[in-house]
Amino acid sequence: MRILITNDDGIHALGLCALYDALAEDHEVHVVAPESERSAVGHAITLSDPLRVRPVKRQGVRFGWAVSGTPADCVKLALHELVPHPLDLILSGINQGANVGINVLYSGTVSAATEGAILGVRSAAVSLDACRDPDFCCAAAFAWDLVSWLGTAEIPAGVAINVNVPSLPAHRIRGVKVTRQGTARFAEQFEKRVDPRGNIYYWQAGETLVGPEARDVDCVALKEGYITVTPIHFDLTAYRAFSLLTPPDF
Amino acid sequence: MRILITNDDGIHALGLCALYDALAEDHEVHVVAPESERSAVGHAITLSDPLRVRPVKRQGVRFGWAVSGTPADCVKLALHELVPHPLDLILSGINQGANVGINVLYSGTVSAATEGAILGVRSAAVSLDACRDPDFCCAAAFAWDLVSWLGTAEIPAGVAINVNVPSLPAHRIRGVKVTRQGTARFAEQFEKRVDPRGNIYYWQAGETLVGPEARDVDCVALKEGYITVTPIHFDLTAYRAFSLLTPPDF
Repeated sequence: MRILITNDDGIHALGLCALYDALAEDHEVHVVAPESERSAVGHAITLSDPLRVRPVKRQGVRFGWAVSGTPADCVKLALHELVPHPLDLILSGINQGANVGINVLYSGTVSAATEGAILGVRSAAVSLDACRDPDFCCAAAFAWDLVSWLGTAEIPAGVAINVNVPSLPAHRIRGVKVTRQGTARFAEQFEKRVDPRGNIYYWQAGETLVGPEARDVDCVALKEGYITVTPIHFDLTAYRAFSLLTPPDF
Repeated sequence: MRILITNDDGIHALGLCALYDALAEDHEVHVVAPESERSAVGHAITLSDPLRVRPVKRQGVRFGWAVSGTPADCVKLALHELVPHPLDLILSGINQGANVGINVLYSGTVSAATEGAILGVRSAAVSLDACRDPDFCCAAAFAWDLVSWLGTAEIPAGVAINVNVPSLPAHRIRGVKVTRQGTARFAEQFEKRVDPRGNIYYWQAGETLVGPEARDVDCVALKEGYITVTPIHFDLTAYRAFSLLTPPDF
């Protein structure tokens, strides 16, 4: 298959290389990724600045294209300008850090897959639940299986797949679960500091709260040792609120 | 009521001033907005850089806080650090340009409202369907009505309200419609240019395609002259795909 891979950790990230190495032997893999880390950019796109593209080599061999934009920019530019048609799949990752619960909204990795679904290409994001000292082996092996599955699976149009892999050795991974996105609140903090010139600034920090959620929710299943597979889409309509709303007249 | 207003066009944008002027006489309004335009940033948040905050005056009087981050950052920082508790409502806008269809995903304006919903505050985004020479009168008048309604309406937790107002004189606005988010594909283009140093760069452009969608879809109703009110949420799970998925084992 002809596969585009991208990420939000940047074209030099180890997780992207691991994904490339897992797929390149059996597939035609094209790399179009941000030139540097663009984590937490959500579904940002670049409209007010021009986008620059430069070729990147790895071990002396042409590896892919580095783009001066966001993951969503990379997917759009790849499809419109950089990768030959037709493209069979888009994989985004392997992200260093899980993308579950509310984090899915902030994630550039997931947004690249959503953008693929918007553009009509089967797409998945793959993230590893390790922020430090990641070992991408299991996630890369599962990505290979995922690609074979995505090629033939019955997935409705407009749906992307968000995959998270626990940071465990293979024998301790308990299996694969289809999950819902968690909606437990994010616990954030702002640390107020004063710079050497006397000006105030804030550092934003935060973590997903694993609240009393059901067991088929992504963050819960991931913590229990399962690889989670969550179908996501780009229709944000809250249909359950539809019949309740009686907005004011004009 | 105590109301936070923000936007993605920046604290000096005319639409924000129009919203402030519509509400400030009857409510306690706090302004926390990006220091400059942050359109199309989606649900980006700032984790790798510190956030700076500075007070902004308007006509010699303290108007609000300018933040060096995104609309979602502004909402978080406002709630955690800058605005006294409890906060009753968050309004984001008035955006210069509609936020309907796929654009909702890219919109910083809408993401500020979504962030409010995540943090448990009733929130709405208000956008005017005019990119040039906007007249915010009708949108500001409707925002006043909206605030009264939001204060008492039965809105499920986790749901934000996305409002779009046609760029028409009041007598030509046909009414208010509860709508779904459109999912018609975005038609984008990349214009390839060469800079004076011989380097290639791309400009991204695009527009929402108003395809053959149902009449209760936001972009269709807006073009027909209705103010659209779309309930949105932050659970991206594609439930319709749930039963179809049989991912590979591990």
